[in-house]
Amino acid sequence: MQFELTKEFLEILISAIERENLSWIKENVCELHDADITDILDELETAEASYLYNFLDEETQGDILMDLDEDLRQNLIQSFSTKEIAEQIEQLDSDDAADFMSELPKEQVEEIISQISNDETAEDIVDLLNYDPDTAGGLMQKEFMQVNANWPVNRCIVQLRKQAESVEKIFTIYVVDEQNKLLGFLSLKRLLFAKPDTAIADLYQDKNVISVKTGEESEDVAKTMEKYDLVSIPVVDLQNKLVGRITIDDVVDVIKDEAEKDFQMASGISENIESDDSIWKMFRARMPWLLIGLMGGVFGAQVISGFEGGISEVPALAFFIPLITAMGGNVGVQSSAIVVQSLARGTDQFGSILQKIGKETLVALANGAVLSIIIYGIAYIFEGPTLGTVVSLSLFTVILFAGVFGTLIPLLLDKYKIDPALATGPFITTLNDVLGIFIYLTIGVLFFGL
Amino acid sequence: MQFELTKEFLEILISAIERENLSWIKENVCELHDADITDILDELETAEASYLYNFLDEETQGDILMDLDEDLRQNLIQSFSTKEIAEQIEQLDSDDAADFMSELPKEQVEEIISQISNDETAEDIVDLLNYDPDTAGGLMQKEFMQVNANWPVNRCIVQLRKQAESVEKIFTIYVVDEQNKLLGFLSLKRLLFAKPDTAIADLYQDKNVISVKTGEESEDVAKTMEKYDLVSIPVVDLQNKLVGRITIDDVVDVIKDEAEKDFQMASGISENIESDDSIWKMFRARMPWLLIGLMGGVFGAQVISGFEGGISEVPALAFFIPLITAMGGNVGVQSSAIVVQSLARGTDQFGSILQKIGKETLVALANGAVLSIIIYGIAYIFEGPTLGTVVSLSLFTVILFAGVFGTLIPLLLDKYKIDPALATGPFITTLNDVLGIFIYLTIGVLFFGL
Repeated sequence: MQFELTKEFLEILISAIERENLSWIKENVCELHDADITDILDELETAEASYLYNFLDEETQGDILMDLDEDLRQNLIQSFSTKEIAEQIEQLDSDDAADFMSELPKEQVEEIISQISNDETAEDIVDLLNYDPDTAGGLMQKEFMQVNANWPVNRCIVQLRKQAESVEKIFTIYVVDEQNKLLGFLSLKRLLFAKPDTAIADLYQDKNVISVKTGEESEDVAKTMEKYDLVSIPVVDLQNKLVGRITIDDVVDVIKDEAEKDFQMASGISENIESDDSIWKMFRARMPWLLIGLMGGVFGAQVISGFEGGISEVPALAFFIPLITAMGGNVGVQSSAIVVQSLARGTDQFGSILQKIGKETLVALANGAVLSIIIYGIAYIFEGPTLGTVVSLSLFTVILFAGVFGTLIPLLLDKYKIDPALATGPFITTLNDVLGIFIYLTIGVLFFGL
Repeated sequence: MQFELTKEFLEILISAIERENLSWIKENVCELHDADITDILDELETAEASYLYNFLDEETQGDILMDLDEDLRQNLIQSFSTKEIAEQIEQLDSDDAADFMSELPKEQVEEIISQISNDETAEDIVDLLNYDPDTAGGLMQKEFMQVNANWPVNRCIVQLRKQAESVEKIFTIYVVDEQNKLLGFLSLKRLLFAKPDTAIADLYQDKNVISVKTGEESEDVAKTMEKYDLVSIPVVDLQNKLVGRITIDDVVDVIKDEAEKDFQMASGISENIESDDSIWKMFRARMPWLLIGLMGGVFGAQVISGFEGGISEVPALAFFIPLITAMGGNVGVQSSAIVVQSLARGTDQFGSILQKIGKETLVALANGAVLSIIIYGIAYIFEGPTLGTVVSLSLFTVILFAGVFGTLIPLLLDKYKIDPALATGPFITTLNDVLGIFIYLTIGVLFFGL
């Protein structure tokens, strides 16, 4: 029943495009769901995609434009005149239209806006372009349904019928007063089952009306919608006047991006890349963290070279350098990841930094104690009791330091409004490498009396 | 306007509970949004939380029960009789009720179900308990609105009014035939603006009806809902009969959990832990990866000990061991993270494994070339041209290997239906550590003629 994109389908489609077999395309592509058409276009070369795109009706074109891969979209757009772009824009929801415009150079934006035939649409887009894309204002759309609290149900239905043309998904009707200030909301369900002459004022819900201000950050909007289990949220200005709404689909993207960003940071990738991106883009996204790692390695080499005499006397000391650095890195990443995740979730907001460090110290002491005992035995077998003591004691110390730093650094970054996820991944491992080597070799030199 | 939970509020509340100041609690807590009450309860000790919970009305109790911290919920439940639990259950949506039951021992579940007064509710819960919690059947709820395609609009409205009592959020009305097979859907918007005698058959949408089967995995349900931008999706059995629906709020949790699980894997945490969990739980969640790291370190030590003679002659070789292992780890984690993310997103599904390895090799060659040139200069300064050549050549080789393994391993795991995220984090770093040391010291021994 549902469409599944296969390699075979793509091959048949490409040959249909080459032979300009319009009836096949009409029957097998144009009837599909917008989301499936988007997937197909993303898999085609620009020329084929462009051919297919131009064959779709205007409404579908508008619906899928913002879901296409950015590269493909920009290629498609280049073949359009400003007039054509303006026509496409009018098919979009205002938030998508504004997102689209924000990808274009300023002069082009002005030209396009002057070509939009519907004044209200143009105004909405110009208004939305004023907001920072990472705020509620940047996420909201101008299409929503509102009624005046003083109206009766039947007048509402007449008004809503008009508004419904431009609003794709309704969810909730917002109730405002004469000054357009948000008073509360009304579910379609309630409206559907109400008597025609009931006043909206007697019907709408005014308790616990959740809204966000235009300037609120996207992440906070996402948290609010998640917390209150909302599928749409009204956006108000500083005077509590209703100016837009945000729907759950846009917020799901924010939630996913946020979670993926943390994963990327922890993995040492500095841009949002995918495995089908260009080699140059991949190279660029990975280089910064590798350079940090390289610098850390050079510092490490510097530290070890300070102990050159010791190592040439007891070469066995070198055996456990990678173990110490790896364990410091692992503990550090674990600790910072727990902090980053708890910060992202907004849980555990009332503990002080000192309490958290205290707790992490206890966990590190426990992990460290078990691992130190195991490694004592192993190092003993390698080189006898002195090396056993040195490796075991160093490992314990390094785990303790790594745990405390791993907890402290993201907490400090967060306190000073820097993304705490920066502290995970290559950064914390590199720091712990250098520190670990220093602690290990110092203890080694002391115990071996070098 | 919106409530914000502060330390001060909690202190006042706790003293109000101690002084049994019911009027303050009624005014300042009971009037709040369910989600805020949940947050407050989560911050209280069990005795205080229990006092407050019992003071709430039944409906609120039901609404918040499944949103409370699991520990708190279990503590609260212990003070209830089976009869009381059954009463609470009847307040819940069927999916929440089933989730709740699945946390309890089997005998207790049977007892509770026998105490539920509404037969239909009991049946729904028993039915839902049959499904694997990680499938569409485990996510779905029995509360949804359905109409028969043969009815006119006015009959529908009468029927829907009945159904609406049990359905909190409507979103979409499902249209079925006489055999209860899903035919399509009808938006409330369309119903609201239709004439009373119009037949549903002329009104509903039967093109591109997206549904999921009960046995489909949660992750796939989430992908489908995301792709088609749905706020709710109908669930059908193998005969295409409508059996339930899944709403976006439950799927947002799946999406978040999935993204967080990848982050946890990459960070070497084996359970879903938060910074306010117990020390014992944290210790347990971190130990497995640390043991893997320790074993890797011991293997590394073994490898280095095989080159003991070489290191005692040229101790400078030891200087760059941490650099080589760190860089191998970084490149490996980057590569595997890109693969894991692309697999999770379902992008780039048509490239073969060989193509992906080929591309990764090119990226690794580029990154490796730049970094090797830099490190040649640095190692030259430390110990002259031979060490420069050894470090630079080893780094290049290790980056290449780490890139290829980092790409290959998650792809292979995925091919054999194992979670590819297992390949990120401590696993890939440990593997690359051992491999890197071996490559580096082998090249070192060869070039220094040891």
